[in-house]
Amino acid sequence: MGKLLIVGSVAFDAIETPFGKTDKILGGAAPFIGLAASQFNVESAIVSVVGDDFPKEYLDLFSKKGIDINAIEVVKGGKTFFWKGKYHNDLNSRDTLETQLNVLANFNPIVPDNYKDAEVLMLGNLNPSVQLSVIEQMETKPKLIVLDTMNFWMDNTLDELMQVIAKVDVITINDEEARQLSGEYSLVKAAEKIQAMGPKYIVIKKGEHGALLFHKGSIFFAPALPLEEVFDPTGAGDTFAGGFSGYIAKTEDYSFANMKTAVIHGSNLASFCVEKFGTKRLQELQHDAVYKRLEQFKSLTQFDIKLT
Amino acid sequence: MGKLLIVGSVAFDAIETPFGKTDKILGGAAPFIGLAASQFNVESAIVSVVGDDFPKEYLDLFSKKGIDINAIEVVKGGKTFFWKGKYHNDLNSRDTLETQLNVLANFNPIVPDNYKDAEVLMLGNLNPSVQLSVIEQMETKPKLIVLDTMNFWMDNTLDELMQVIAKVDVITINDEEARQLSGEYSLVKAAEKIQAMGPKYIVIKKGEHGALLFHKGSIFFAPALPLEEVFDPTGAGDTFAGGFSGYIAKTEDYSFANMKTAVIHGSNLASFCVEKFGTKRLQELQHDAVYKRLEQFKSLTQFDIKLT
Repeated sequence: MGKLLIVGSVAFDAIETPFGKTDKILGGAAPFIGLAASQFNVESAIVSVVGDDFPKEYLDLFSKKGIDINAIEVVKGGKTFFWKGKYHNDLNSRDTLETQLNVLANFNPIVPDNYKDAEVLMLGNLNPSVQLSVIEQMETKPKLIVLDTMNFWMDNTLDELMQVIAKVDVITINDEEARQLSGEYSLVKAAEKIQAMGPKYIVIKKGEHGALLFHKGSIFFAPALPLEEVFDPTGAGDTFAGGFSGYIAKTEDYSFANMKTAVIHGSNLASFCVEKFGTKRLQELQHDAVYKRLEQFKSLTQFDIKLT
Repeated sequence: MGKLLIVGSVAFDAIETPFGKTDKILGGAAPFIGLAASQFNVESAIVSVVGDDFPKEYLDLFSKKGIDINAIEVVKGGKTFFWKGKYHNDLNSRDTLETQLNVLANFNPIVPDNYKDAEVLMLGNLNPSVQLSVIEQMETKPKLIVLDTMNFWMDNTLDELMQVIAKVDVITINDEEARQLSGEYSLVKAAEKIQAMGPKYIVIKKGEHGALLFHKGSIFFAPALPLEEVFDPTGAGDTFAGGFSGYIAKTEDYSFANMKTAVIHGSNLASFCVEKFGTKRLQELQHDAVYKRLEQFKSLTQFDIKLT
């Protein structure tokens, strides 16, 4: 079992969907990643920053799930990053109503000594300069660096982002971002171009339409589980990344075959995430439910065909 | 091996895509269905109508592929159904520039005696009253009736369409049409409602995002093969239906497990269809290419996961 180092925002989210709205609840990339990865009982730590308005109960939640919180800096007198958004009726798009970077604006990540040799480094969606700093602090080159990012950084800090991309093994982005980054409409061509930028593995997330994993000339596809209802899509991508990187850290198997399984685990956990607001479903999620749904993934995709 | 009876339009298409344009070429649902099904060497016949402007070479092409053309009525002095359309840049939507129903306007289908006991009846997208007439002419109840339809008939002849839907075993429609027909946004809920209308199997086609097969509480998903380039999407849905129904007719196995395999065969053949204009790729398609690509479908979707 390898160690998993997670870098990402820890935030308050206020969310409105067609099904309801919340006041400030636990959000940010790192909590979704950490809670998803905790399903595999990996040794993990979060590098992040919060204000002293951040409730102790959330930190306790991380600890209870086996996530090391010593590298979550608490800024005295500071306020935690806040995001407020509203989803449209089809849940495929949303408007950001408010963003307060607060303590995240001057975040200077410090990798704890006991994680400078982590086997898997999961860079959650964040300013590329922060991601780069973390990579540079590692004393042992991680066996796998996974990068999650988004169009905001392509628009505003492309040079720094390209430096990070050149240093990672896996990149996870959505279909529109893959097209933007590569300038190619075809996702097959887009993945080829992005591989040339550095990452050996490209994961293109298509939301309700599943996720594609590209490696050299090979492609693997994991559908999203068809659900009766999606309640709140917030954090689904982070949950996917947490399931993916957590499973890899647990198995320490960096083969393409194992990446496929990791993509299925990521998709499986993401299918729970969207059932309730924020991290609620992940917090209460039990192993037996996870494995029961993996059976559904199997029956959803596995077929028998004779090639004669 | 069962017999396959195909009912559907035979047409001239004039197509414009971002990659080029054609004058009148062979189009319509039945040719795509028939050519796809011919990959399984099934005994098949097309019930349709054309004008005497329809080239003998096309009829000869059907015959050469083993498709019985005796029930394709040739109307003396009549003109063949003509459709002209232009695809948008993303190929996901198109504008119809011209529709001339011509001889299709008064089409009175006659099922040939030797196909009144066909095991599989494939109702291509067409006026529901024509589809209904064909069902009523069958002397032996087919083992499987497959219906393809579209939003046009939901908008204009919903009562007749509902009568047909009540009589079929499988319906294939796209995601938007499933939502329209059911009034449900969630495809899981949509499929439940449509099952209550009659069909035991619901296939929801999502174009580049693959196809879902619903049966009672079970779901199977077949991705579309990620392609470097889609050249012309015309006929992809009909090709899917032809591969699906052709494979079922060949195997005469009406189980859910075999339907899954049929969905894969349909998706596989559709992935060839879109590579060239109209039926061109299907006309030249060889078995070895088909089976090679089925291997790609396997590696695209099959994974190994231990449920421990």
